[in-house]
Amino acid sequence: MTFKKVITLGEVMLRLSTPGFARFTQSGNFLVTYAGAEANVAVSLRRFGIPSAHVTRFPDNDLGKAAAETLQRHGVDCSEISFGGERLGVYFLENGADQRSSRVIYDRFNSAFADIRRGDINWKEVFKDAQWFHYTGITPAISQGAADVCLEAVQVANQLGLKVSGDINYRRNLWQYGKTARDVMPALIEQTHVMNAGLADLENCAGIKMSSFAEGCDQAFRQFSKLEYIASNERESVSSSHNNITGMLCARNKKVITSEKYEIRNIVDRVGTGDAFMAGLVYGMITKKDDEQVLAFATAACALKHTIEGDVNLVSVEEVEQLVKGENVGKLLR
Amino acid sequence: MTFKKVITLGEVMLRLSTPGFARFTQSGNFLVTYAGAEANVAVSLRRFGIPSAHVTRFPDNDLGKAAAETLQRHGVDCSEISFGGERLGVYFLENGADQRSSRVIYDRFNSAFADIRRGDINWKEVFKDAQWFHYTGITPAISQGAADVCLEAVQVANQLGLKVSGDINYRRNLWQYGKTARDVMPALIEQTHVMNAGLADLENCAGIKMSSFAEGCDQAFRQFSKLEYIASNERESVSSSHNNITGMLCARNKKVITSEKYEIRNIVDRVGTGDAFMAGLVYGMITKKDDEQVLAFATAACALKHTIEGDVNLVSVEEVEQLVKGENVGKLLR
Amino acid sequence: MTFKKVITLGEVMLRLSTPGFARFTQSGNFLVTYAGAEANVAVSLRRFGIPSAHVTRFPDNDLGKAAAETLQRHGVDCSEISFGGERLGVYFLENGADQRSSRVIYDRFNSAFADIRRGDINWKEVFKDAQWFHYTGITPAISQGAADVCLEAVQVANQLGLKVSGDINYRRNLWQYGKTARDVMPALIEQTHVMNAGLADLENCAGIKMSSFAEGCDQAFRQFSKLEYIASNERESVSSSHNNITGMLCARNKKVITSEKYEIRNIVDRVGTGDAFMAGLVYGMITKKDDEQVLAFATAACALKHTIEGDVNLVSVEEVEQLVKGENVGKLLR
Amino acid sequence: MTFKKVITLGEVMLRLSTPGFARFTQSGNFLVTYAGAEANVAVSLRRFGIPSAHVTRFPDNDLGKAAAETLQRHGVDCSEISFGGERLGVYFLENGADQRSSRVIYDRFNSAFADIRRGDINWKEVFKDAQWFHYTGITPAISQGAADVCLEAVQVANQLGLKVSGDINYRRNLWQYGKTARDVMPALIEQTHVMNAGLADLENCAGIKMSSFAEGCDQAFRQFSKLEYIASNERESVSSSHNNITGMLCARNKKVITSEKYEIRNIVDRVGTGDAFMAGLVYGMITKKDDEQVLAFATAACALKHTIEGDVNLVSVEEVEQLVKGENVGKLLR
Amino acid sequence: MTFKKVITLGEVMLRLSTPGFARFTQSGNFLVTYAGAEANVAVSLRRFGIPSAHVTRFPDNDLGKAAAETLQRHGVDCSEISFGGERLGVYFLENGADQRSSRVIYDRFNSAFADIRRGDINWKEVFKDAQWFHYTGITPAISQGAADVCLEAVQVANQLGLKVSGDINYRRNLWQYGKTARDVMPALIEQTHVMNAGLADLENCAGIKMSSFAEGCDQAFRQFSKLEYIASNERESVSSSHNNITGMLCARNKKVITSEKYEIRNIVDRVGTGDAFMAGLVYGMITKKDDEQVLAFATAACALKHTIEGDVNLVSVEEVEQLVKGENVGKLLR
Amino acid sequence: MTFKKVITLGEVMLRLSTPGFARFTQSGNFLVTYAGAEANVAVSLRRFGIPSAHVTRFPDNDLGKAAAETLQRHGVDCSEISFGGERLGVYFLENGADQRSSRVIYDRFNSAFADIRRGDINWKEVFKDAQWFHYTGITPAISQGAADVCLEAVQVANQLGLKVSGDINYRRNLWQYGKTARDVMPALIEQTHVMNAGLADLENCAGIKMSSFAEGCDQAFRQFSKLEYIASNERESVSSSHNNITGMLCARNKKVITSEKYEIRNIVDRVGTGDAFMAGLVYGMITKKDDEQVLAFATAACALKHTIEGDVNLVSVEEVEQLVKGENVGKLLR
Repeated sequence: MTFKKVITLGEVMLRLSTPGFARFTQSGNFLVTYAGAEANVAVSLRRFGIPSAHVTRFPDNDLGKAAAETLQRHGVDCSEISFGGERLGVYFLENGADQRSSRVIYDRFNSAFADIRRGDINWKEVFKDAQWFHYTGITPAISQGAADVCLEAVQVANQLGLKVSGDINYRRNLWQYGKTARDVMPALIEQTHVMNAGLADLENCAGIKMSSFAEGCDQAFRQFSKLEYIASNERESVSSSHNNITGMLCARNKKVITSEKYEIRNIVDRVGTGDAFMAGLVYGMITKKDDEQVLAFATAACALKHTIEGDVNLVSVEEVEQLVKGENVGKLLR
Repeated sequence: MTFKKVITLGEVMLRLSTPGFARFTQSGNFLVTYAGAEANVAVSLRRFGIPSAHVTRFPDNDLGKAAAETLQRHGVDCSEISFGGERLGVYFLENGADQRSSRVIYDRFNSAFADIRRGDINWKEVFKDAQWFHYTGITPAISQGAADVCLEAVQVANQLGLKVSGDINYRRNLWQYGKTARDVMPALIEQTHVMNAGLADLENCAGIKMSSFAEGCDQAFRQFSKLEYIASNERESVSSSHNNITGMLCARNKKVITSEKYEIRNIVDRVGTGDAFMAGLVYGMITKKDDEQVLAFATAACALKHTIEGDVNLVSVEEVEQLVKGENVGKLLR
Repeated sequence: MTFKKVITLGEVMLRLSTPGFARFTQSGNFLVTYAGAEANVAVSLRRFGIPSAHVTRFPDNDLGKAAAETLQRHGVDCSEISFGGERLGVYFLENGADQRSSRVIYDRFNSAFADIRRGDINWKEVFKDAQWFHYTGITPAISQGAADVCLEAVQVANQLGLKVSGDINYRRNLWQYGKTARDVMPALIEQTHVMNAGLADLENCAGIKMSSFAEGCDQAFRQFSKLEYIASNERESVSSSHNNITGMLCARNKKVITSEKYEIRNIVDRVGTGDAFMAGLVYGMITKKDDEQVLAFATAACALKHTIEGDVNLVSVEEVEQLVKGENVGKLLR
Repeated sequence: MTFKKVITLGEVMLRLSTPGFARFTQSGNFLVTYAGAEANVAVSLRRFGIPSAHVTRFPDNDLGKAAAETLQRHGVDCSEISFGGERLGVYFLENGADQRSSRVIYDRFNSAFADIRRGDINWKEVFKDAQWFHYTGITPAISQGAADVCLEAVQVANQLGLKVSGDINYRRNLWQYGKTARDVMPALIEQTHVMNAGLADLENCAGIKMSSFAEGCDQAFRQFSKLEYIASNERESVSSSHNNITGMLCARNKKVITSEKYEIRNIVDRVGTGDAFMAGLVYGMITKKDDEQVLAFATAACALKHTIEGDVNLVSVEEVEQLVKGENVGKLLR
Repeated sequence: MTFKKVITLGEVMLRLSTPGFARFTQSGNFLVTYAGAEANVAVSLRRFGIPSAHVTRFPDNDLGKAAAETLQRHGVDCSEISFGGERLGVYFLENGADQRSSRVIYDRFNSAFADIRRGDINWKEVFKDAQWFHYTGITPAISQGAADVCLEAVQVANQLGLKVSGDINYRRNLWQYGKTARDVMPALIEQTHVMNAGLADLENCAGIKMSSFAEGCDQAFRQFSKLEYIASNERESVSSSHNNITGMLCARNKKVITSEKYEIRNIVDRVGTGDAFMAGLVYGMITKKDDEQVLAFATAACALKHTIEGDVNLVSVEEVEQLVKGENVGKLLR
Repeated sequence: MTFKKVITLGEVMLRLSTPGFARFTQSGNFLVTYAGAEANVAVSLRRFGIPSAHVTRFPDNDLGKAAAETLQRHGVDCSEISFGGERLGVYFLENGADQRSSRVIYDRFNSAFADIRRGDINWKEVFKDAQWFHYTGITPAISQGAADVCLEAVQVANQLGLKVSGDINYRRNLWQYGKTARDVMPALIEQTHVMNAGLADLENCAGIKMSSFAEGCDQAFRQFSKLEYIASNERESVSSSHNNITGMLCARNKKVITSEKYEIRNIVDRVGTGDAFMAGLVYGMITKKDDEQVLAFATAACALKHTIEGDVNLVSVEEVEQLVKGENVGKLLR
C-alpha cells in the first residue's frame, strides 16, 4: 500500500543528554542526537511506512548538516529544509530516576528556525502529494516569523484539502516575543482537524477551563468548527522510572473513549513519548477505520517509546500491533 | 573435595549485543562476548568448583581463538576443541525493556561447528575422568554431523557409565538440514538420565502433548526408560524488565516438586538463564542428596543469572546458597 | 543568609567501581571517584549552602591531589588537608541488582590517613568560624592515631562550643589495631550532641542491647549526658534495586518521630545514602526549628541520594524540599 | 549546478572494528559501521554534491535496514536496494600501528548480495537520469550472479551512453565460485572507460605483466578499446601509522602524470582510502577539464581519507580543494 | 614561598569536542569541558603554585555552576564570579589529524558574559592582595560591556600598581557589536606591561605592519609607553598532528631572544597552547630574574600543553623545568 | 613440536591506567588489566606455543581471582598459584605523549606476594616437565620472603638441570626491607645462565661499572661462572611517542652482536616491552640455533609490543618472524 505524504513543520534542536543517570555537573560527556517534537512525528510515521517530509531551517554549518542527516537517515524527505541563520537551538537533558525528576535546560533562542519568515516556504509546492500537515504549539511560541509560517501552512493545507493535526503543547517558558498563546493559538486551532491537548493546554491556549477531558472536548468542539478529534495521553508519574500511560480520544459528537493503561516501570527515556502518541494517532487515522483501534495504536506506540533511547520512536507497526494484542510482550524473540 | 569432570558439547558463537537499551539500528558499537548454551553450563559448573571440559569446533582465526580463550579464562578445559571450518557463528542481541521485547538475530549457518563429523571426537578419550555428559537440543538441530556426533557422545557416555543430561531446547528456526526434531531427538533422550524440558519441548521433540508438567513427566518416563529426572524452569514474563521464575523437578516415580518463586524486576540480562538453571541442576545432583535442595539451588542460580551481564552465570556456590537461605539478599556486603 | 562552617574529619578513599552491573572479574575498566563518609557530608552541606571544611591526610602524589581536587570542586575548604604518608586507601565497588548483593572490597590499610597523629591538627585554628564538627565511627576504627585525633577534635569542639555530631557506623572489619569499638567509642559519644546510630551500632559501640529504637534511645540518653538527638535511617532491602527508607529521630525527653517511607525501586547507587541522611540532619538542625521538618529533610535527602551516581549527594536544597512536599516528584522539568 | 546521477553497484557489509589499537582477542566491544567499496564511492560523491544511487541487496532484517539507513543518512538514493537472502556479509577489522599490520577477517560468503541474479535489476530504469556507472572487481568475484549482474550493468550503461568506471581491485581470497578473475574481468574492462588499477591488478585480471605503470597502461589501452583513462594510487607503507600516497593518471595517447606525494604520518583509518581516490577521480572527471586537476583532486581526497574514522570519506569539496592548494593544511580553523 | 594573586577576566564557555578524530556529523557523543583563554591562564598559574582568581559571569543554571566548579576544582578563586544572564557560550571542536585541519564552531553570542556591564565588578576589591591582572583581546571583542569592563580593569590595575598582561589574540569573527579592534585595543595596550602578540595581531589591533617580530616590537614599544615586554609563540603547522613551537621575547631596549624549538609530532590537543605559553610567561616573570629563563619556561609549558587533553595545561612547574633542562623527556617515570 | 614448560615466578599487580592521554587528575575511569614482569613473559611464551606456568600468590578475593583468570585466559598454567595474604598490589599508569613522560605510581607494599615464604612452593614438583625457569630482579626486591623463594627456585632449577634466565631490572624504589640489590642479586646471578641487563643494572646489582656493554659482559662472565648469555635491549627515547629499539646479545667467549634498530614513532603502550624482549629471547633460545636469529626475534618481539595495549605481548610467532624478514610490515592484511 502506498500513502500520500505527511508534512511536518518545526524546529529541530541538538539534544545533549548526560549518559546514564549522571547530573549535569558530573558529566564528562554528553550524548548527541538531533530532535524536535514535529520531526519526531515525521520520523515515527516514516518508520511506520508513511512517507513524510519535514520543513525546518538549520544554520549552514556542520551541526545543521548533522541534524538534517539524522532525519534523512530515517528516510524523512529533507528537500524543503533551508540553511541559514545564526545557530542551532540546543537542549540539555538530565535523566531522573525514582523520586528525582528529569531536567531540561533549553538554549534555543536566536536559532536559525526562529529566523524563518512568512513567504520563505512555498506551501503549495510542499503540499503536493501530501495528505496531512502536522504542527505543534511549540512552533508559534518561538518567534513571530515561526507563528506566521505556521498559520500560512494550516491555511494552505485547508485550502488544498489536507487534514491538519496540532499537538497543542503549551510551554510556559517560550512565548517571549511579545505574544501569548491565547493571542496566537486560536487561529491555528480553528484550522485544525485533529488536536492533541490536555486540560492545561486547553486552558492556556484556548481559555477553556474544565475539570474533565470530556467537558473540555465539548467546549472545544463548540469553539472550533473544523475540529474532528481531540486526543490526550494521560500520564501518571509515579516516579521518574515509573509512569502509567492512558490514551483518550473524543470524536465530535461521540463519547470519550479510553485506552488500556500501560504501566512502564523501568523507563529508558521519556522524552518524545507525547510525539510518539501523536504519530500513532496520525498513523491510525490514516490506516484504520475504528476509533478504538486508532487510540489503541497511538497509546501502545507511546508506551513503547518509553523504552527507546533518544527522542524518536524507533519501533515498527508490527511491534505496536503486537503490544495492542498483548502478544510477545516482554519476551526474548529469537 | 575433588570431582570428576563434566563434559559438554555444543556450538559457541560470537555474541554481539547493543549497549544499554539501544536498538540495532541506532547502535554505533556492539558488546562482544562468546557463548553457547552448553558452554555456558561448562563455565557455570567450573565456577561452582566442578571441573569441566567443552567440546566444540572453531574456525582457525583470531575470532575462534578469542572464543576459546573466553572459555579458558573461566577454567574450562579446552584441550578437545578443534580448529577448522568456515566461520564462527554469530548472534546479535538487542535488549528489550518494559513492554518492548528483546530480539535475537542468528547468523550461524555454515559455522565451523556445523562442519563437525562423526568420528572427529574420540569420546572414549574425552570421557576419561568424567562423570557426566551434557548436551542440548540445539546441537542436533544444527547439522547432520552435529546430530551424529551428539548421538555418538550419549551412546559412549552410557557405555562408560556417565550420567547424561539433555536440555531439550526446541528451536523452530534451526532444523534446516532435512531432519525434524521428532526424527532425531527421541534417540538422544533414550540415552538421557536428566532432562530439562518444558511442555512445548516435549511436544515438539517427543510428541508428548499434555496440559500439565506432571502429566508430561509421567508420559516421558514411560516413553524413555533411562530418564531419572525431568526438570523445567517456568518463566512468567511480566515485561522485558520483570520476569518471575519457578523451578520444577520430577524424579521417576515421585511427585513434581516446585521451588520458591523469584521475582526479578530489574533484569540485567536474561540470556543464558536457562543454562544457569541447568548448571545448577547438574551441580545439585552431583553434590546434594535431597531433590528439594537440588531444585532450590538450580532455581536460585537461574534467578541470579538475570543480574549478570553476558551469557554466563558468574556467581559462586556461596552466593547461590545464600539466596536459597534468604541471607544477604540485595544487601551491600562490605 | 550566611552560616558558620561545619568541619568534618575522616579518610577519603579512591573508589573504583565496575560500570553498570559488571562483576569485578568481567570489568575492563573501573569508574573513578574519591569519597569518604565524612567528606560526603561536607560536600553535601556545601551544596546545601553551608560552608564546610574537611580535615584529612593524603599521600603526596597525583592520586592524593586528585582526591583533594574532587572535594575542592564541590567548594569544600581543603586548606587543612595535609599531604604525606604511604598511600591512598582504595575501595572497590560492584553494584548488585535484584537478588544479587552489591559488594565492596576494602584496601585501606596503611593509608596516609591511618598515619595521622595526635597534635597534627591545630583544632583551635580549624574550628575558628565553625559551628559544628562531624565525625563517624569509621575514623577511630582505622588506627590509634586516627582515634586520638578524633577524640582531640570532639574535646576541643566542646570546649569551643561547637555542636558535635557522630555517625556511629560500626564496621566489623576495621578495628584491627588492638582496640575494640567498645573500648574507644564511648569516650567519643560522651562528647557528641547528635548521634546517628541503629540498634546494631548501639550494641557494638556502647553495649546497649535493646529491641526497639525507642528503648535504645532511652538508654543512650541516660548513658551519654551531652546527647541531644539520636537519629536512624531504617532501610528495608527488598532487593539491590529496591530499598525502602524511613527516618527516625528522637530528641532527649521526647518521643521518637518517624518520617514518611520512601520506596526506591530503581536504585542507581546506594553508597553514601547514610551520609546523605546525616548531611540532611545537620542541615536541618542548622536551618530548621521543627524536629519533624529536620527529619523530613534528612530522609528525603537520603532517598534522593539513591538516584545519584557516586558517593556524594549532588542535590540542591530546593530538590529536597520539593520531595518533602511531594512536588515535582518524578517529572520532566523543562 | 546540478548533476546527473552516478550509479554504483556492490555489496555493503557490516564492519566490526576493534576500538583504538586493541587486538581481536582483547576487545570487549566492536565499533559498528556499514560499508562497501562501491557504496563508499557513492557516499563520497554525494557529499561532493553529485547525486548518487547505490544498487545492492540486503537481508530483510534489522541489520540490513541499518545498513540501508547508513547510506540514506549520507543522501545516497537507496530506492533500488532490494531486501531478501540469507545474511549480511561481515568484516572484522583490527587496526595496526607502527610495524604491526592491520588485519581484516572476512565473513561474507552466502550473503544476501551474493544471491543477486541476472534480471533482478531493471538497469534501464536505474540508469534514467544517470551519467555514470561505477563497479569494482570485488563484485564479480563474489558469485556468478553478481558477476552476471555486473556485466549486464556495464553493457546497458554503454548502450545508454553512460560513462563506466571500474576499480579493478583483485582480491585473491574471493573468486571461489569456479571462475577466475582472468575468466571474468576482461569482458567487464572491455566496457569500461575509466579504470583504476595497479600493476598487480592488471596482471591478475588481464594478464598484463609489465614493470612500469606506463607500460601497463600502454598495453591495457591496446587491449581494451573503450578505455579512456587508467589511474592508480601508489601507496608506500612505511608503517601502519605512516603511508605516503601518490596518484598517477594516464589518458589514452598521453603520458602518465603524477601527483604530489602526501606523507600521512599519523593514520587514523586507512580502509576506504582507495575508494576515496576513486570517488575523487569520478568527481574530477565530471567537474574539471584538466587531467592534472582531476588527479590532484583525487589524490588529495585519498590523503584526507586517512584521517577519517570509518570507511567513507567525510570531507567536502572545499576541504579537498584547500589541500590541493596547500591552504589551511593542519591548522585550527575557527 | 607565597605569592600575591593573579587576576584574570574573561568568558568561560562550554567546550564540546568530538572524541578521537570523529567529525561533527559522525559523533554520537561530545566530550565536555569548560574553558576560556583567560581562565586557562588562571588555572595554569594556580597549578604552578600562584594563587589566582577569575572574574566572569555565568548563567544561573546547572551549566553555569558546572563551569564554575571546573575552575574551583583547580583551586582558582571563584568568589568574584557573578551569576545571571541568558546562556553559557558554547564552542564545538573537531580534532584534525595529519593534513585535515581542526575546526571550531562558536556559538557564543548573547552569553551571560556578553551581558557584563561597567560597574558590575568592584575592581579595587578584586585587586586586593593581587600583583597581576591578565586579559586577552577576546574579551573586548565580545560586547561593548565586556570592552568597558576590561578597560576599567586595566586602569584600576595600573592605579593600584599591578602588572598588566594582555594576550592580543585577534579574532576576526568576533567584533560584531559595532566597534573594531583598531577602535578599542590601543587604549587597552596603553595600560599593558606585558603583551603577547604575533605580527597579525599587531597589525589588526594596533595598525603596526612590519615584516619581522623585532621591527614590530620596536614600533610597539614606541607607540605604547608602558609596554615592558612583547612575547610571541611562533607555530609551524606541519600538519594537525605535528607542530613546531618557538618562543620569542623582547624586552624594551633589548634584542629579541628566541627559545629552543620544540617539535611536537603526535599532538593530543592543541587548543589552549597559546594560553599555556602566556601562563608560563606570567609565572616566569613573577619567579625568575632572567629573560632567557622566563622564555624557556613559557615555551616548554606551551610545548607540554600539546600533550594534554582539554584546554588547560595540567602540568607542574617541575615537569616544565625538566623539559627546559632536557631531563626525563619522553621517559617512563616509575 | 611439543616443548617442556617454562616456569616463571613473580608478583602480578592490578594495573590501572588512564584512558588515552588523560592525566591522573582528569580521569573518570581507569582501564583495568593484571600484569607483572615475569607473568608477562609466561603469557608471551604461551602465545608463542611454549607451555608455561606462573608461580605467584594472590589475595583470596575477587581481584585475586580476576588476576588469575587473566593469566588463565592466555593459557598459562595457574595451578601453582596460592591464595592468601592481605591485598593485591596495584600500579597506576598515565601514558605520556611527545615530550611529556609517562608516569607510574606503585602501591604494592604488603601485597599477598610479598607475604610468600621459603618452603611455600614445592619447586621439585613445579619443575617437573619443565626446561626453563625465569625470574626478574623485581622479585627479590619485594621482601625477604620473595628473595628467599627466588633463591630456592634458582638453586633447585640448577639441580634439576633447567636453564635459568634472569631479567635484572633494578628498581631503586623497591628494596625497602633492609637488604640492597648488591646484597642479594649476586647469589641469584650466580645460578643464572641467561641474563638480561643494561649497564645500570650491572652496576647496581653486581657492582660492575663499565662504559660499554661489551666490557660489562666481559666482567660479568668472569664474575658469574654459569652465565652463558647476556642480553640487553637499548632504548633511545626520542619522546614518549617515539622510541628506537636495538637489541644486543653476547655469548660467553663471543663478540657482542647487535640487532636491526626499530624506530617506533606512534607508540601505543611501552609498558612490558622489556618483558617482550625477554620472552623473545627465551623463545629464541629454545627454538633457534643461531644467536643472530635469537636476537632478531627478541628485538622484533620487543618492537611489536610497543603497538599493543596492556602489558602483555599479544603477537604470534608468525608476526614476529615476518617483522624479522621485513614482510607485511605496516600493511593491511586481508
